[in-house]
Amino acid sequence: MSECKSHQLFDAYFTAKAMGGVFSDHGRVQAMLDFEAALARAQARVGLIPQSAVMPIHVACRASLYDFDALGQAIATAGNSAIPLVKALGKQIAIAVPEAERYVHLGATSQDVMDTGLVLQLRSALALIDHDLHRLGDVLAELALRYATTPLAGRTWLQQATPVTLGMKIGSWLGAVSRNRQRLNELKPRLLCLQFGGASGTLASLGDHALPVAHALAEELQLQLPDQPWHTQRDRLVEFGAVLGLIAGGLGKIGRDISLLMQTEAAEVFEPSAPGKGGSSTMPHKRNPVGSAVLISAATRVPGLLSTLFSAMPQEHERSLGLWHAEWETLPEICCLVSGALAQALTIAQGLEVDAERMASNLDLTHGLVLAEAVSSVLAQRIGREAAHHVLEQCCKRAVAEHRHLRAVLGEEPQVCAQLSSHELDRLLDPAYYLGQATTWVERARAEHFALES
Amino acid sequence: MSECKSHQLFDAYFTAKAMGGVFSDHGRVQAMLDFEAALARAQARVGLIPQSAVMPIHVACRASLYDFDALGQAIATAGNSAIPLVKALGKQIAIAVPEAERYVHLGATSQDVMDTGLVLQLRSALALIDHDLHRLGDVLAELALRYATTPLAGRTWLQQATPVTLGMKIGSWLGAVSRNRQRLNELKPRLLCLQFGGASGTLASLGDHALPVAHALAEELQLQLPDQPWHTQRDRLVEFGAVLGLIAGGLGKIGRDISLLMQTEAAEVFEPSAPGKGGSSTMPHKRNPVGSAVLISAATRVPGLLSTLFSAMPQEHERSLGLWHAEWETLPEICCLVSGALAQALTIAQGLEVDAERMASNLDLTHGLVLAEAVSSVLAQRIGREAAHHVLEQCCKRAVAEHRHLRAVLGEEPQVCAQLSSHELDRLLDPAYYLGQATTWVERARAEHFALES
Amino acid sequence: MSECKSHQLFDAYFTAKAMGGVFSDHGRVQAMLDFEAALARAQARVGLIPQSAVMPIHVACRASLYDFDALGQAIATAGNSAIPLVKALGKQIAIAVPEAERYVHLGATSQDVMDTGLVLQLRSALALIDHDLHRLGDVLAELALRYATTPLAGRTWLQQATPVTLGMKIGSWLGAVSRNRQRLNELKPRLLCLQFGGASGTLASLGDHALPVAHALAEELQLQLPDQPWHTQRDRLVEFGAVLGLIAGGLGKIGRDISLLMQTEAAEVFEPSAPGKGGSSTMPHKRNPVGSAVLISAATRVPGLLSTLFSAMPQEHERSLGLWHAEWETLPEICCLVSGALAQALTIAQGLEVDAERMASNLDLTHGLVLAEAVSSVLAQRIGREAAHHVLEQCCKRAVAEHRHLRAVLGEEPQVCAQLSSHELDRLLDPAYYLGQATTWVERARAEHFALES
Amino acid sequence: MSECKSHQLFDAYFTAKAMGGVFSDHGRVQAMLDFEAALARAQARVGLIPQSAVMPIHVACRASLYDFDALGQAIATAGNSAIPLVKALGKQIAIAVPEAERYVHLGATSQDVMDTGLVLQLRSALALIDHDLHRLGDVLAELALRYATTPLAGRTWLQQATPVTLGMKIGSWLGAVSRNRQRLNELKPRLLCLQFGGASGTLASLGDHALPVAHALAEELQLQLPDQPWHTQRDRLVEFGAVLGLIAGGLGKIGRDISLLMQTEAAEVFEPSAPGKGGSSTMPHKRNPVGSAVLISAATRVPGLLSTLFSAMPQEHERSLGLWHAEWETLPEICCLVSGALAQALTIAQGLEVDAERMASNLDLTHGLVLAEAVSSVLAQRIGREAAHHVLEQCCKRAVAEHRHLRAVLGEEPQVCAQLSSHELDRLLDPAYYLGQATTWVERARAEHFALES
Repeated sequence: MSECKSHQLFDAYFTAKAMGGVFSDHGRVQAMLDFEAALARAQARVGLIPQSAVMPIHVACRASLYDFDALGQAIATAGNSAIPLVKALGKQIAIAVPEAERYVHLGATSQDVMDTGLVLQLRSALALIDHDLHRLGDVLAELALRYATTPLAGRTWLQQATPVTLGMKIGSWLGAVSRNRQRLNELKPRLLCLQFGGASGTLASLGDHALPVAHALAEELQLQLPDQPWHTQRDRLVEFGAVLGLIAGGLGKIGRDISLLMQTEAAEVFEPSAPGKGGSSTMPHKRNPVGSAVLISAATRVPGLLSTLFSAMPQEHERSLGLWHAEWETLPEICCLVSGALAQALTIAQGLEVDAERMASNLDLTHGLVLAEAVSSVLAQRIGREAAHHVLEQCCKRAVAEHRHLRAVLGEEPQVCAQLSSHELDRLLDPAYYLGQATTWVERARAEHFALES
Repeated sequence: MSECKSHQLFDAYFTAKAMGGVFSDHGRVQAMLDFEAALARAQARVGLIPQSAVMPIHVACRASLYDFDALGQAIATAGNSAIPLVKALGKQIAIAVPEAERYVHLGATSQDVMDTGLVLQLRSALALIDHDLHRLGDVLAELALRYATTPLAGRTWLQQATPVTLGMKIGSWLGAVSRNRQRLNELKPRLLCLQFGGASGTLASLGDHALPVAHALAEELQLQLPDQPWHTQRDRLVEFGAVLGLIAGGLGKIGRDISLLMQTEAAEVFEPSAPGKGGSSTMPHKRNPVGSAVLISAATRVPGLLSTLFSAMPQEHERSLGLWHAEWETLPEICCLVSGALAQALTIAQGLEVDAERMASNLDLTHGLVLAEAVSSVLAQRIGREAAHHVLEQCCKRAVAEHRHLRAVLGEEPQVCAQLSSHELDRLLDPAYYLGQATTWVERARAEHFALES
Repeated sequence: MSECKSHQLFDAYFTAKAMGGVFSDHGRVQAMLDFEAALARAQARVGLIPQSAVMPIHVACRASLYDFDALGQAIATAGNSAIPLVKALGKQIAIAVPEAERYVHLGATSQDVMDTGLVLQLRSALALIDHDLHRLGDVLAELALRYATTPLAGRTWLQQATPVTLGMKIGSWLGAVSRNRQRLNELKPRLLCLQFGGASGTLASLGDHALPVAHALAEELQLQLPDQPWHTQRDRLVEFGAVLGLIAGGLGKIGRDISLLMQTEAAEVFEPSAPGKGGSSTMPHKRNPVGSAVLISAATRVPGLLSTLFSAMPQEHERSLGLWHAEWETLPEICCLVSGALAQALTIAQGLEVDAERMASNLDLTHGLVLAEAVSSVLAQRIGREAAHHVLEQCCKRAVAEHRHLRAVLGEEPQVCAQLSSHELDRLLDPAYYLGQATTWVERARAEHFALES
Repeated sequence: MSECKSHQLFDAYFTAKAMGGVFSDHGRVQAMLDFEAALARAQARVGLIPQSAVMPIHVACRASLYDFDALGQAIATAGNSAIPLVKALGKQIAIAVPEAERYVHLGATSQDVMDTGLVLQLRSALALIDHDLHRLGDVLAELALRYATTPLAGRTWLQQATPVTLGMKIGSWLGAVSRNRQRLNELKPRLLCLQFGGASGTLASLGDHALPVAHALAEELQLQLPDQPWHTQRDRLVEFGAVLGLIAGGLGKIGRDISLLMQTEAAEVFEPSAPGKGGSSTMPHKRNPVGSAVLISAATRVPGLLSTLFSAMPQEHERSLGLWHAEWETLPEICCLVSGALAQALTIAQGLEVDAERMASNLDLTHGLVLAEAVSSVLAQRIGREAAHHVLEQCCKRAVAEHRHLRAVLGEEPQVCAQLSSHELDRLLDPAYYLGQATTWVERARAEHFALES
C-alpha cells in the first residue's frame, strides 16, 4: 500500500501547501512533461518535425497519465527520472498516434529534461516566495509604523541595554525582507534559463536546427537562453538556494526574537493564539511559540542543506554522477522549508500581540541602569569620557549593591549634581526621551519597502 | 488527493525499502503507539492503573486505525506529533472502553512519546544497517581474498604510482566496514535508552510510582534506563547520526573508486550490468555507474544533514523550540540515505566485474615509470638516497622525452648498470614482484572482519 | 615582517593555550620530526640502517632548527609539508654527519609523515581534552550535589513549566560530559594508530623489512599498527572530530542555558565576575556572558567544520588531492575551538554564581500556573484525565484573566474542592513538593561520573 | 615566543598574499582604527568635537603602535576586540594630547567599530577577488578561443560520450566567472555600508547630532548609510560569503576537470610544470596537480564555513552572543581560501598545457562508440527513434563483443546501409563533424565576458 511508504506527517507544519504541490511527484513529472511538449512545439515551429506531431505529444504530456510508483522503480534502474518518463511518454503517444512517437524528445538528453523541468518548478517557487515576502513586508511595514515609538529594552548579549522601540526592531526584520526581495529580483535572469544541450552539451544531433530550436524552445517556455548549457555549472541553482538561505536566516531571527520576547519572564510580545495552538499535553496554561519553532527550525536546517549544494558544485566534465544526484531532493527541500517558515511568519506577523505595558515595566527592571548611558554621554561632554564612565560605573554598582534606583543614587552624587539638574536627571532616566533615531530607522525601512513595490 | 502531495519519486533509488518502512508515517505513528501501549503495561505492572485498562489501550495502539492526513493537520496547530496522536488515541479507546481512556499517557510528556518512539525506530534502523554492513563485509572479505594478488596501478593524486592489488584496495573498504560495525556496537547502550521524564523531566506527576514505572517501562521496551531524561541532551542521537556519516563516507569512497576505475580510459572494474541499467537516453553504448552515483550522493548529502544535527545540539533548558524540530526529519533522512547507499554497495560488490588484463596493460601505460621507486629504493641502499633519486629522476625524464620504456633507459645508464644486473632490473620492473605487503593487508582486514563475526 | 601575516588576535579567547601549542607550526613540524626520528630508531632496531645513523638523525629532529617561513613557501610548490621538511632535514643531517643523510625517511611517503605526525598531535589533544573534561565533570558533580534540591522553573519552549532543580539541570550537563569521556575512551584504539605504507601503501620499497619496521615503528611511537595503511580511509580522524563535535554541542548547551539564565529578566545564574570581564564600552552596568559566548560560538562553528571533514571522506584511490588537503587545517581548528570552549566552561563552572532567591521568586511569576500539573495529575486519578485537564484549563484561564493566583481560583472551584482539601492544595502548589526524581537524577549522573574515574 | 603559537604553515599554499595581509591582525586592527579616525573627522565636521582633536586621534590610529599579543589577552576578558583597542587608543592619544582623549569613539559601540572595520576589510577583499576574477576571465576567454575547435571526448558520468571541444569546456568555466563578477557587482551596495548605531542601535547618545554624524561618517569612509544599523541582521555579510562560495565551487569544478584530465590514463591537459612542483618524495616521475588540489580543497572547505555563517544568522535582539562571535574568523577564512584558489587557478590557466593529439587518440578509445549518436540521430529521422536506437544498440554491442570498430560493424548492417552511404558513415564517425554548437558557446561566453569589461 502506498500509504505505508509516505512520509508526510510534518508537511502541513513545515511546508506551505502550494509549495508542496510544486515539488510533489506530480509537480515534478508535469514540469518535465512541459519541457517535452514545448520541445515538440518549438521543433514544429522551426520545421524540424511535422506540426501534426505536436498535438499527440501535447495530449500525452499530462502527469496524471503516469504511474509514479512504476516510474520510481524504473528510476532506480535508469539512474535518473527522465529516461523512464520519456520511455513511458513514448508509449503513451504511440497508443494514440504511433507515427508521432518518433518526434518526441529529439536532440535532448535526460538532464535537459530534468533541469529545465526543475527551472520551471523553481519559477513557480520563486513567485510563491516573492509573493509571500511582499505580503510579509506589507504587514511588517504596518507594524513598524504602529509601534514606531513604543519603547522596550534593547538587549545585547541577552542583557538589557538602552531602550529601543518595537517598531525599530520590526523595521530591522523588514529591512532583511526588502533586501531579499531585491536579491530574488537580481538573480532571476540567471536562474530562469533553459537547459538544452543534448548528450554532451553541443546539441550536435540537431545539426543546423540546433540554435533555432533552442531559441524557439526558450521562447515557448519563456526562459532565457543561457550562454551555453550548464549541466555541470550549477551556480544558477545554488545562488537561488543561497538567497533562500538568507531568507531562512532572516525569518529565523524573527523567530528567535519573538520566542525570547514570549518568555514567561519577558512576556512582551506573543504569537497570535488559536484554539489548541501551542498547548502542552501536561501544562494547561502554556502557550508555546509553535510558529517561531518553525522559523528557527528552518533556519537550522537550511544551512546544512545549502552546504550540500555548495559541496556538490565541482561536477565532473559534462555530467556528474553523484554530485548532481545530491541536488535532486535537496533544493526542493530548501524551497519547502522556506515556504513553511514564510507562511508561519505571516501568520505570526498578522496576529502579533503586544503588551506595551509589560515592556515599560520590564524597562524598569534594572532600576534605571539601562539609562546610565544617557547620563554618561551627557556627562562625558562635560567632564570627559573616562571620568564620566567611571562615575557612572560607581553609581551603578552602588545602586545594585543597595538595591536602589539609579535616579536616587545619582541624585546624591556630587560629581553628577554639579553638572546636571534634577529635572535633567529625570528626563535622562525616562526611556521615552532616549530613543534616538528609532523613528528614522522605521521611516527608512518603510521607504525601502515601498520603493520596491512600485 | 493524497497523491498530489507525495514526493517519493526517488525513494526506490535512494532508500532501501525496509528502511523506508521504518520511517514512513506508519512506522513513526506505530512507534509512538508502542510507547503508549508499553506505558500502560508498565503502569499496570506496578499497580498504578488497573490491569483491565491494558487491553483496551493495547488494541487501540495500531497505527492503521489513524488518519495520517488529519494527524498532519493537527500537528501544524499543536507543534508536535504526540499531542494530536494521544488525543486521537484517547478517542479511539473511549469508543470501545470509555473507562480505560483515563489511563493512557499517564505522567508522560509529548517528547517522551516522540523520543522513545524514535529510539524504537532507530533500533530497527540500526539492526538493518548492521545486518547489511555484515553482509557487505562478507562479500568484500571474499573479494579481497579473490583479488589479493591481482595487480593494478596504485594511484595517488590521480596519477599512477607504484602497483597495489585489487584485493588490498577492497581490503581497505572492508576495514572501514569493520570499524563502523565496532562503532555501532559501542554506541548501542547509549542510543537504545528510554526517554521518560514528564513535563520538565522530573516525573513529578507520578509521585512515588515514578521510578518503578520508569524501570518497568524500560524493561517492557527492552531499552536502557538512562541517567536521567535527555530531552535537551541530544548527543545520543547525534552520535548515531555521526556513525551513519562515517558509513556514508566509507561507502562514498567505494563509489568514488569504482566510478574512477569504470572510466572509459581506465575500464578496470565495473558495476554489474543489468537490462536497462545505467543506459543513456542518447548514447546506446554507455554503461553509467548508477550505483556508485547513489554512494557518492549519500556521501555528499549526509554531511550537510549531520551539520544540522550538530548545530541543533545547544537546546534550551528542559525542551527546545526549533532546534528539536530541526531533528525530526533530518535523522530519518540520514538513515534512509545510508540504507540506500548500503543496498547499492551490496549490489555492486556482489556483481563486481573485474578486467585484470586491462589492469595489467594500464600498469604499463607509463612504460615502467611507476616502478621507478622499485629501482630507486634498491639503488638508494647502495649509492645513497639523494643520488639514487637524482639518477632515477634523470632516467625517467629521458624515458618520457624519448618515448622509451624506462627499462631500456636504465639499461644504458652506467650508474645503474654498475649496481644492478640485467636480471635484477627485469625483476624490479615487474609489478608482480613489487606488491609489498598487499596480501598481509588483505589477511589483516579479513581477520578483523571475521573476529567481529564470532 | 612575519607579524604582518599573523592572525592570532582571537586565539587567547577561543583556544586553550596548551592546545594552541600542539597545533602551532612548531607543534606540527615537531610531530613530523618525531616520526622521522622514530623511523630511524625502528629501522636501526631491525638492522635496516646502522645504529650510528640514529643519533645524527635524532639530533636534527628538533623543530627549532627549521625556518617555518621558508617551509611555508616550499609547501606551496610541493603540495604538502613533508617533502620540503624531509629535504631540509636531510640537509640538516648532512651538515653534521653526511653519511647519515641517506638513512632518513626510508620507505616512507609524505603522507606517512604528515598523518602519523598528526596522530601524535591528536594524542596530545585527546589527553588535554580528556583531562579538562574530567576536571569539568568533577566541578559539575560537586555543583549538581550542592544544588540538588534548589528549585527553579523548568522551561520548555522557553515557557515556564513545572519546577526542576538546578542540580538536576547541572546533572544533565554532567551526563553529557561522562558520555563524551566514554566515547573518547572507546575511539582511542582506532585513532591512535600508525600511518606507514610508503608510496601506494604496500611498503614495497622496504622488501622483507617492511613488517618488522612497521611493528618496531609502532612500538617506538606507542601507536597501534592498523589493519593496513589508511591514507584514503579517514574515518579514524573524522570519528575523533565527531566526538569533539558532540563535546562542543554539550558545552554549547551549557552556554545556552547559562546565557538564558543570566538574562536581565531571569537573573538566576551568572558567570563569575572578574575585573573588566564582560563589561560593555557603553553600558557600565552590564555583565555580558563572555564565556558562554565562546561556548555557543564553538558549538556554531564546529558543525560546519565537521561537515567539511565528512564531505572529504570519499578520497580517491591511494591518495587524494584536495580532499586530503581540506583536512589539514580543519581538524586542528576543531581541536582548538573545543579546547577553548572547555577552558571557558571550566572557568564558568568553578565560579558559578547562583541566586536561589530569584529562582524562587521567578517560580511564582505565573501565580501558580506552573504547578497546575501537580493539581491536575492528582485530580486526574480521581475524576479522569480529560476532565481534570479541562477543569484546570478553565481555572488557569480564569486566574490569568482576573490576575489572581491559581491557588485562590482553585480554592473556589467546587469540582476541585470536592476532591482536594485546603491543605492538600497548599502543598500541591509548593514547588518544593513537586520536584519528583530530581535528586535521583543527580545521584545517577554523579554515579556515572565517579564510575568513570576509577 | 610568538612563533610558538603561529599557525601559518599552509598560508602560502592556501591563501593569496595580499588577502592574507587584509585579514592579518595588523589589517584587522588598522581597519578598526580607520573607523575611529573617520569618526573623529566626521564629528569634527558636524561640530560635535573640536577640529583640534582630529589630528591627535588620527596620529594614534596606526596599527603598528599597538601590541597585538596584549590585545589578544585583553580580548579574552572583554569578549570583543573593540573594547581593549579603544582603551589602548585612548591611552595612546592621552600620551600626546590628553585633552583629545575624550573625543574618541563618541557614540559608537564596540560592534560599530568591529563591523565597519570588517566592511572596510571586505571592500579590499572584494576588490582583490574581482580583480583576479577579471584576470582569470581574460585568460580563459583567450584559451576558449584558442581551443574552440579542438575536439576531446565529452564525458558524462565519467564515461566517454559524444565529443566536445576544449574551448567549449573552458567557455563553461568562463561563464561561471562572468556570472560571479555580476553577482559581486550587484551585492556591493548592500555589503559596503556603514555600521553605526551605538549601544542598542538608536544612536541616542549622540542626540540631534546622530544623523549628521552618521552621514558624514559614511561619506568619510565612502560607504553607504544603510536603512538602519544591522548589528543582528547579518545577511549583508552572509550574501558575500555565499557568492564567495559560488566562486569556490566554480573554481573547484576547474580543479576537478583538470585533475581528471591530468590522470595518467587520460593525460590530455596539464597544470604548468615548474621546478620541484608537484614532485613526489618517492616517485620521481610524477607530476601531481598541486594547484588543482587547492581548488578542490577550497571548494570542500568553504561550504562548511558557509553553513556556519548561515547558521549564525538568527542573532538575538540587538546584539548576539556566540553567533556573532562565530563569524569573526569564519568569513575571513572564506576570503582567504577563495583568494588562494583564485591565485592557483590563474597560475594554472596561464600555463595550461594541452595535448591535442592525446585528446584525439582518446576519442577513438571506444572504436567509434561515442559517435553512435551521430549515426543514431540521422537514422532516427528516417526509421524512427526507437528503431534507430535499437539498431545502434545492437551494433554497439556487436562492436564491443567482437572488438571491432563501430564503423566496420555499421558498414555491414543492412538497416544502416539502406539509409546511409559509406561516405555519410565516414563523416558521421569523424568527431570534427560532430561538434555542434561548440564554437557558438565559446562566442557567447566570450561576449558575456567582454560585455562585463566595458
